[in-house]
Amino acid sequence: MTNTQVTHIQIDNYGPWTVTPEPRREVDLQTLQSRLYADLSQLFGNRNGYVFFTRFDNMIAVSNGVDMDAHALIQESVSNRYPVTMSLGVATGRSPVTALGTATELLQEEGSAQDKHRREILKGRVIDEEFRQPDDVQLAHFDVDNATEKYTDQLNEFDTFINIEQGYAELMKYMRHEHNSLSFFVGGDNIIAVCPELGNDAYQDAVDHVSETVNVQLKVGVGQGKNPADAGMDAKHALESCRATGETVELDF
Amino acid sequence: MTNTQVTHIQIDNYGPWTVTPEPRREVDLQTLQSRLYADLSQLFGNRNGYVFFTRFDNMIAVSNGVDMDAHALIQESVSNRYPVTMSLGVATGRSPVTALGTATELLQEEGSAQDKHRREILKGRVIDEEFRQPDDVQLAHFDVDNATEKYTDQLNEFDTFINIEQGYAELMKYMRHEHNSLSFFVGGDNIIAVCPELGNDAYQDAVDHVSETVNVQLKVGVGQGKNPADAGMDAKHALESCRATGETVELDF
Amino acid sequence: MTNTQVTHIQIDNYGPWTVTPEPRREVDLQTLQSRLYADLSQLFGNRNGYVFFTRFDNMIAVSNGVDMDAHALIQESVSNRYPVTMSLGVATGRSPVTALGTATELLQEEGSAQDKHRREILKGRVIDEEFRQPDDVQLAHFDVDNATEKYTDQLNEFDTFINIEQGYAELMKYMRHEHNSLSFFVGGDNIIAVCPELGNDAYQDAVDHVSETVNVQLKVGVGQGKNPADAGMDAKHALESCRATGETVELDF
Amino acid sequence: MTNTQVTHIQIDNYGPWTVTPEPRREVDLQTLQSRLYADLSQLFGNRNGYVFFTRFDNMIAVSNGVDMDAHALIQESVSNRYPVTMSLGVATGRSPVTALGTATELLQEEGSAQDKHRREILKGRVIDEEFRQPDDVQLAHFDVDNATEKYTDQLNEFDTFINIEQGYAELMKYMRHEHNSLSFFVGGDNIIAVCPELGNDAYQDAVDHVSETVNVQLKVGVGQGKNPADAGMDAKHALESCRATGETVELDF
Repeated sequence: MTNTQVTHIQIDNYGPWTVTPEPRREVDLQTLQSRLYADLSQLFGNRNGYVFFTRFDNMIAVSNGVDMDAHALIQESVSNRYPVTMSLGVATGRSPVTALGTATELLQEEGSAQDKHRREILKGRVIDEEFRQPDDVQLAHFDVDNATEKYTDQLNEFDTFINIEQGYAELMKYMRHEHNSLSFFVGGDNIIAVCPELGNDAYQDAVDHVSETVNVQLKVGVGQGKNPADAGMDAKHALESCRATGETVELDF
Repeated sequence: MTNTQVTHIQIDNYGPWTVTPEPRREVDLQTLQSRLYADLSQLFGNRNGYVFFTRFDNMIAVSNGVDMDAHALIQESVSNRYPVTMSLGVATGRSPVTALGTATELLQEEGSAQDKHRREILKGRVIDEEFRQPDDVQLAHFDVDNATEKYTDQLNEFDTFINIEQGYAELMKYMRHEHNSLSFFVGGDNIIAVCPELGNDAYQDAVDHVSETVNVQLKVGVGQGKNPADAGMDAKHALESCRATGETVELDF
Repeated sequence: MTNTQVTHIQIDNYGPWTVTPEPRREVDLQTLQSRLYADLSQLFGNRNGYVFFTRFDNMIAVSNGVDMDAHALIQESVSNRYPVTMSLGVATGRSPVTALGTATELLQEEGSAQDKHRREILKGRVIDEEFRQPDDVQLAHFDVDNATEKYTDQLNEFDTFINIEQGYAELMKYMRHEHNSLSFFVGGDNIIAVCPELGNDAYQDAVDHVSETVNVQLKVGVGQGKNPADAGMDAKHALESCRATGETVELDF
Repeated sequence: MTNTQVTHIQIDNYGPWTVTPEPRREVDLQTLQSRLYADLSQLFGNRNGYVFFTRFDNMIAVSNGVDMDAHALIQESVSNRYPVTMSLGVATGRSPVTALGTATELLQEEGSAQDKHRREILKGRVIDEEFRQPDDVQLAHFDVDNATEKYTDQLNEFDTFINIEQGYAELMKYMRHEHNSLSFFVGGDNIIAVCPELGNDAYQDAVDHVSETVNVQLKVGVGQGKNPADAGMDAKHALESCRATGETVELDF
């Protein structure tokens, strides 16, 4: 049974900062945001976690294996190197959606995301080491069938992007409401979903739904692990297996 | 009348590289992609251009003012510092969509995005310095009304993201098909659109459409300039003006 | 008694790469080198290690607590994100100089630093977890007395730098030959030395030597720990104590 | 005749910041410093300038071709993305030492490097575009003869470093006092010197001095240009020519 540990990362009072005293140059904001995300990818990744960029000013991490001390160190490392600080809410649950709900509430209780006095909140709890299990994390790695041949090499890049984006917009909504999962676009034609314990049918259902609704054909490899790095790598191998065999859904557990 | 110069940036043969000889660790891919985007933001930004991350393996830049020599230097600088190379197609046009179409075709003519022998293509043409005009670039900066109060401080972060994302997915599609514009999510609740010469009505129409279709309320500031940096900064000021006055659309030209 | 674990980091065949097929732009090389160092600082630092930039193409890490699997992951993460690869030799010893000697030999045995066929060597051994002790690492943090008042605010920046540099060049040589220590300039007026078990007299001797030889007045705080992060932080606190009390040498253990 | 434009870059009140309220983690400081240097390399480099890391909290740029507006933008871009700000003094002169002296004085006049109220100073003057000449900048690129064979592949890395470092410490001092030049270690066995108009004899003299004094054998390629990028690339080609012919000094102008 899954037990997902989720961290909600929120840059403190970021919106107002971007326009104070005057709007800051967009290229600098883009650089700041994407580098902060890159750093968090490494800071969590070196502890076997995954971070998704989501909205950049708010990011979501799957953090099984990252304890509260490590969260504190990550928070401090960012404040040592960036002009902004960030708050962290950490929670766990059988369902990633429920876990995230709790993590977000921990931050909301402390004040608005744009409260100028609310800074560097660190709240929540992690899974005690002794209770961590090899099937705590289930990750699904989706991609689009023949995206290069069908889209990238045929359409202008924006129309390719529209196809990928519509597929993603539909999948993220469906997986959240029907399967309690959090799905994130990670570049190219790839989407990674953080899932509760789901089986082959649930994934086939999601792939079918996207195909029927927006006519984008997906396939998906799924992995499980004690931490996101292991689950994610298994999911990638399962997806490679889909590519080799032509299967739509492949579970590697 | 606008004359948008668009650069299609495509990492060469990236998909295969990410899984050769084995799938590479996702956190490293995420770090690589977001840092490459950050670097391109600075490389184009220091020449008054804008880059959008789009799908990360394919990015779109508005590059008015960046000549072919500068494109060559940017291409070389990336190959000097990354394990991957990139190809660049450059084109211009009254409509950003048409310009991008040409830019993409320039790359497609040279081979597939996953052709292992097609590397570091640099093709296309820029607007001659003498023909550049102060209204060549029109950029629109949208954001979501009261996103923090309505979403961020109320919902779990993923549900907030779903709202923003559905608004974006609808706007990007509508602006492309109805108004020949390229719209990019840039983080938070912000979307920047690269537009042909559009007036107040077109923007109001787009905002209304998104509101009616997916119930997300947008507002928008619009700027013009000889280059994206100027147009974008004017758009930001216009958006600040919307915030102050309650207007839905503000044109700063 | 100290037991220093040292990692010799060597970029594979770097010199030839920088001039093939033509000399690469210096600003790109500088960017590549300093970012690689920044990444290694984080990759080792997140595991409580320290890295020193040394010559940038060859770097030296104090890596107590970083096991061989972590070394492999660091090596892979760099090859995933940079156009160059690196080899790693790891060794331990009572004396940091001896440990480094062994680490370097491990690489030299495999071929020249400019052998184009020698890539991503990973050799050596770490201290078994069960044998790690709270005094394995001794780090000394030196700085220059009143550097800002005497130099930075008085001389042109290069002449300030000459003073700092001559102090460093003298200290590094003396500490290596008289006290089996490895001393690294870390910016500003700061030098960090990796030492065997030394007492107050040895540090006073080194400070006196530099003062007499090149007329640069140093002070030093010293810490011990199971890993470099702890020893280094204690050394910083000891140095703060020197600043408060006027002492020249302060041992925090 | 040379006319070097020099920028003294000084992080504002950096020393106190690194220990307030408590000493910050060294790995974060190292990451901050080296990334700031990497960014400045690109920010100046994209405008054909060169930056040297010097002491990291104080850096020296050769900035011919970078006007005051560009300096302002660079200053703003850093403050948008880092937790620290920086002050810039800009000056020109036939002698790089004199130019730097003026640039430093411009900052010193405004207060101490550790004055908490002195922030983001931007003072000085650049060479007017109309007066810029193709021989304004003379750069010399030194390296150590057979460094890999004699040192890297033979000695432990620290002893190799001692040799390189002693060669550098001697050269920097001698070039500054005898030839009004600013010499910077740039990694590996490479040193770049910013020089006034010097001929073959002066370089031969410096190489001989270092050989006689510390027994390190150097060779040097020299280039000239309107900006540092051009002069530096010519110097690299001249140094390649030394490698091919066995010459000790090669002037590429």
